[in-house]
This record gives sequence, structure tokens and C-alpha cells, in this order.
Amino acid sequence: MEIKQAIIMRTDLDMGKGKIAGQAAHAAVLGYVKVMSRDSSIAEAWEQGGQKKIVLKIATEKEFFELFSQVKREIPCAMVQDAGMTQLEPGTATCFSIGPWDSAQIDKFTSKLKLL
Amino acid sequence: MEIKQAIIMRTDLDMGKGKIAGQAAHAAVLGYVKVMSRDSSIAEAWEQGGQKKIVLKIATEKEFFELFSQVKREIPCAMVQDAGMTQLEPGTATCFSIGPWDSAQIDKFTSKLKLL
Repeated sequence: MEIKQAIIMRTDLDMGKGKIAGQAAHAAVLGYVKVMSRDSSIAEAWEQGGQKKIVLKIATEKEFFELFSQVKREIPCAMVQDAGMTQLEPGTATCFSIGPWDSAQIDKFTSKLKLL
Repeated sequence: MEIKQAIIMRTDLDMGKGKIAGQAAHAAVLGYVKVMSRDSSIAEAWEQGGQKKIVLKIATEKEFFELFSQVKREIPCAMVQDAGMTQLEPGTATCFSIGPWDSAQIDKFTSKLKLL
């Protein structure tokens, strides 16, 4: 079984490169911690196997929350809400991570999304 | 003591937004795992306290490796080397994380760097 983590990033918020990088990093750690507490063998295998990950984009807030609702029923997901100190309103949801989890199961939900 | 994680990103590699986000995410998890194994109280305090992080830029490979050599003597750092499947040569060092660690101690090394 291949394990990966997917990060779903909103592109409608006009975030700069550094902001996007920080939010993705936040999502990655939150997702790792969540999976570690639920099934540490998956999290460890992913971490030690090179941490395969993909960053995907989604263009609207509506699609973003719809996808989150669907995926989280089957796979551990972690939403990032920005503290809003710089570019965004406090509490703005910027991205979420899926997994680390079985790659094929993630693909069922994300196969139509494009790489950021 | 405020705890944060800094991610130092090279800007001389012409990486796209998605690439930068993936590398930053990788560095964040590697750094978290490293600090967790060395002093779990720091890693847990950071993670539960909102994961403060900053993403900083550095313009040349020389400065990048010089900074890494200096910082890692005092603070746990984690270097990311790209697998090179897409935009970069295999093994290219793209970024490294510092900490999570005492924010003031990180600032001693990074105060001259600008936000990405």
C-alpha cells in the first residue's frame, strides 16, 4: 500500500508564496499528528518512507468545504484556519490535509483536482 | 518562552508555489518529528499552542548552507532534499526547518532574513 498526504489549498484568497507555504506546513503537521494518534503505524510508515505528498488546488470556498465534508467521513483530515494576523480575516479556512493515508483511497476524492 | 518553527527557503531554484508548499510541509514535519524525539515537551507545546511558524527566504546556495551549518550546532534543524521527480535535480536541497524551538534563540540566527 502506498501512503501519501494530500494538501488541498484554496486559490481564491490571493495568498502569497510564503503564506501558502506556512499554511501547507501547518496542515501537514496537523494531519501527521492526527493520524499518529489514530493509527501510528500509518503515520510512521509515511514519515520514514519519505513523506510522499501532493499539493492540490481548489478554486472556490463552496467546493473546498464540500470536498472536506465528503473526505473526512472516510479519511482523517485536518483543516487550517488562519490566525489572521497578516493577510487574511481571522478564522479564514485556507487549506486542509488528507492523511497520510492509503494513496488509492485519497485519489478517489481528489483525482479531478490539479496540482497547485 | 515563545516557541516557533522557522522554515528557510531557497529562492534561487525557481520553484513554483505548489513545489514551495510541498517542500515547506516536508520540512515542518521533519522538524517536528526531530524535536519530538529529542524533547517532546517543546514539540507538544508548539503543536498544541497553534504551531507558530515563519517562512523566510535566502537567495543563494552558499548562504543557505552556511546558515544551516551555524544553526544546527545549537538548534535541531531538518534539511529537505527533493526527490527530483519533477522540477529539480534529485537531491537538491530546497529548504530546512529550525525547531520548533525557543523563538528568541531562533531569531539570533534569522533576524536579517526577510519573509518569503
